[in-house]
Amino acid sequence: MNIEVYFSSQNVDELSLRDKNILVVDVLRASTTIATALANGAKEIIPVDTIEKAVKVSGNLYGDVVLRGGERQGKIIEGFNLGNSPSEYTEEIVKGKSIIYSSTNGAGAIVKARYAKNLLIGGFINISLVVNFIKNLNEDFIILCASKNYLFSLEDAVCVGMTLEKLCEEKNIVYKLNDGAIASQSLYKTYKRNLLKMVKTANHGKYLIEIGMENDLPLCVAIDSVPVLPMQISNTIKLQN
Amino acid sequence: MNIEVYFSSQNVDELSLRDKNILVVDVLRASTTIATALANGAKEIIPVDTIEKAVKVSGNLYGDVVLRGGERQGKIIEGFNLGNSPSEYTEEIVKGKSIIYSSTNGAGAIVKARYAKNLLIGGFINISLVVNFIKNLNEDFIILCASKNYLFSLEDAVCVGMTLEKLCEEKNIVYKLNDGAIASQSLYKTYKRNLLKMVKTANHGKYLIEIGMENDLPLCVAIDSVPVLPMQISNTIKLQN
Repeated sequence: MNIEVYFSSQNVDELSLRDKNILVVDVLRASTTIATALANGAKEIIPVDTIEKAVKVSGNLYGDVVLRGGERQGKIIEGFNLGNSPSEYTEEIVKGKSIIYSSTNGAGAIVKARYAKNLLIGGFINISLVVNFIKNLNEDFIILCASKNYLFSLEDAVCVGMTLEKLCEEKNIVYKLNDGAIASQSLYKTYKRNLLKMVKTANHGKYLIEIGMENDLPLCVAIDSVPVLPMQISNTIKLQN
Repeated sequence: MNIEVYFSSQNVDELSLRDKNILVVDVLRASTTIATALANGAKEIIPVDTIEKAVKVSGNLYGDVVLRGGERQGKIIEGFNLGNSPSEYTEEIVKGKSIIYSSTNGAGAIVKARYAKNLLIGGFINISLVVNFIKNLNEDFIILCASKNYLFSLEDAVCVGMTLEKLCEEKNIVYKLNDGAIASQSLYKTYKRNLLKMVKTANHGKYLIEIGMENDLPLCVAIDSVPVLPMQISNTIKLQN
């Protein structure tokens, strides 16, 4: 069983992702925010890669059933209802709503992977569910890190490494790993003792601290704290019934 | 002093590299082959990113002073004089010659970085000279891994990690590292005990073994075995006088 890890969606073309099993990882913060929104009762997340598309898509829906969420440079987009902090996506605000979601990197990676056979969204917050899904499926898998501005992001690689470590605990499955996967495992071993410290050291974590979003960081590294598995179902991101 | 590491030239645009100090690392095999050719007396290396350009450039030069070298899928290009094994670039063959050089990833990365202020080519084979150059320059530096097909390559990251480790031995210089740099250092610590084993584990190393190029691998990880520093001087890659 092959597991390929890519550190940026820019390095993979859309067609090569078609009909594959894909996990998108965006620890800071798309994975965390999407899982939180769905766990709190949002009906679905509709990822769009540009603000223009977000406006266009939401224009066709009634205001009382749809919210627009996401970020540019980590901050809420003008005219949107919600930014990209998982803490904004409370049950009170999101329950029953469709959320048009656009973030710089995470939403772009999800959109790029939309022709997948199975498309999951994962992070530290739902890692055990992700691992169980991959184990049970027992087919080749691609893990796509959203990364920051198409550059290698430490927190995504470490999260992927933890995912692989947990997969490899099952001794009877042999995984064939690419260089990105091998490196991720090694990085997880280095940083596993203190994930919060790791994420504060990482470029994007430092940036979020700078813009006053430090409180999001512990939420994004809290293992299995949001035990739901966001998946693409009928072209939007939902939880399975 | 900032050190930024990029795991693929695809993730950096040409303009952002303009006037920067840049080290291109392509352990397997461009860095090793270029250094070996120059150490064995080649006059210069002229990197070109496409075979068409190689043919065009060499068409303007006399056959007795120019050689065409490089690879596609690791193998010699039809009509070229030399492949991409460092062992082909002997003194007997290359002395005094200009070598038009085209490799899938290494030459492309060098061409992309051509507007640099300083452009060096480094690998394990000349690592101490590279480190000394960066230390003495004492300015911000970008390290660009050539990688294989724009994907993360373990051997380049480990070589970059070793470069950074050696830079950081100098306690009085404080480096500001990006996520790629931090990860490289960590990967070097994991793999430093056995670089040959690491390179045989890496995707591109395995591929080279498959196509019968295993003998190149020890050459490419032999620390300081080719103590010359290839640099861009007047638009071609040379040694300083």
